[in-house]
Amino acid sequence: MLQLYFSPMACSLASRIALMEAGLDARYHLVHLRTKQVVDDDSDFHQISPKAAVPVLVLENGERLTESAAVLQYIADLKPDAGLAPRPGDPDRYRLQEWLSFVGSEIHKAFLFPTFWYKDDASLAKPRARIGRTLSVPAAHLADRKFLVGDSFTVADAHLTWALLLLGAAGVDIAQWPSLAAYLQRMQARPMVRDAVATEMALRRTMATSPA
Amino acid sequence: MLQLYFSPMACSLASRIALMEAGLDARYHLVHLRTKQVVDDDSDFHQISPKAAVPVLVLENGERLTESAAVLQYIADLKPDAGLAPRPGDPDRYRLQEWLSFVGSEIHKAFLFPTFWYKDDASLAKPRARIGRTLSVPAAHLADRKFLVGDSFTVADAHLTWALLLLGAAGVDIAQWPSLAAYLQRMQARPMVRDAVATEMALRRTMATSPA
Repeated sequence: MLQLYFSPMACSLASRIALMEAGLDARYHLVHLRTKQVVDDDSDFHQISPKAAVPVLVLENGERLTESAAVLQYIADLKPDAGLAPRPGDPDRYRLQEWLSFVGSEIHKAFLFPTFWYKDDASLAKPRARIGRTLSVPAAHLADRKFLVGDSFTVADAHLTWALLLLGAAGVDIAQWPSLAAYLQRMQARPMVRDAVATEMALRRTMATSPA
Repeated sequence: MLQLYFSPMACSLASRIALMEAGLDARYHLVHLRTKQVVDDDSDFHQISPKAAVPVLVLENGERLTESAAVLQYIADLKPDAGLAPRPGDPDRYRLQEWLSFVGSEIHKAFLFPTFWYKDDASLAKPRARIGRTLSVPAAHLADRKFLVGDSFTVADAHLTWALLLLGAAGVDIAQWPSLAAYLQRMQARPMVRDAVATEMALRRTMATSPA
């Protein structure tokens, strides 16, 4: 069975959503990102992955895959009929990769990561000044689209949904971008998204950790 | 013909290397990233891409693709026989995506981007404190490997080669990680890498711009 190392409301939420949307069972291991401990057995998360970052997906053959962009595409390709990614060879597959990269680098790594890990105003002044321009890109794209890629839900939507949820926690009011607010509302109406978020929010209340 | 919007020694260098390694002709458009002007015709780069970031690859059908992770995979798939990416369906394809994400987010967006764009010490203290641990990941991986993925050069190597070149300019002495230093030397011995870097270094000397 697949195994996912996750931390509640961290970017691994997108992988949980993808697994649930694909209808794939997995064993979920909760990680304290501050202490780098795996809660199951109090083991050192560095032993699972030297990066000590989530997500880590343990594949059926025991190999460990990291980085949301790779983990999400792997999950999508396990169940091609679920339509969570355009098939390889479809030009839209590169659009999926484009959005996964944008969310992972421009929203997560350039803004959410310093917000939740660096925290001090000195570190955050410039990321904060920049996030509005960053968000104008998906806002414009979604002005006349229901999903980031093609006409149905993909793992890119799982990734952006997570990022938009965290932006709220990071003090960015996405109501400034009506297309993003409407998109997030649509995504949150999906049963699997709702269940995944409810599960992780409940777990998060039991621990004091940082989500990004 | 493909067209690549680039800025000398910016992350678009990886796309140039990929195009050259694939033996693909392309028209190259130089962009001033500070002024967001396309040098060819002094036009506004925002008209090419609202992100106003490089790389932008103009495909044969006129569509524009952004984000190195997507552009590099697109280029690799145009010439599968060049072996610049494991074919879709090969488990190593996810390893390629994993490294593209790591270089793009952890090295580029978390460190090189603030170094060259934010510049002030207050913004950079925490990224600087973190880069050593980040680089220990590829350093360990490359201790007994010649390439990031599989046994031959892929676009992930093009991406990391660019990042390692910029780390030097950012004041990080990669001699601290002998495996990274040896890897960079091997990559720089490749004729296409050497030519791509020489071309962009020559162009860079003609302009005052920031590389990351």
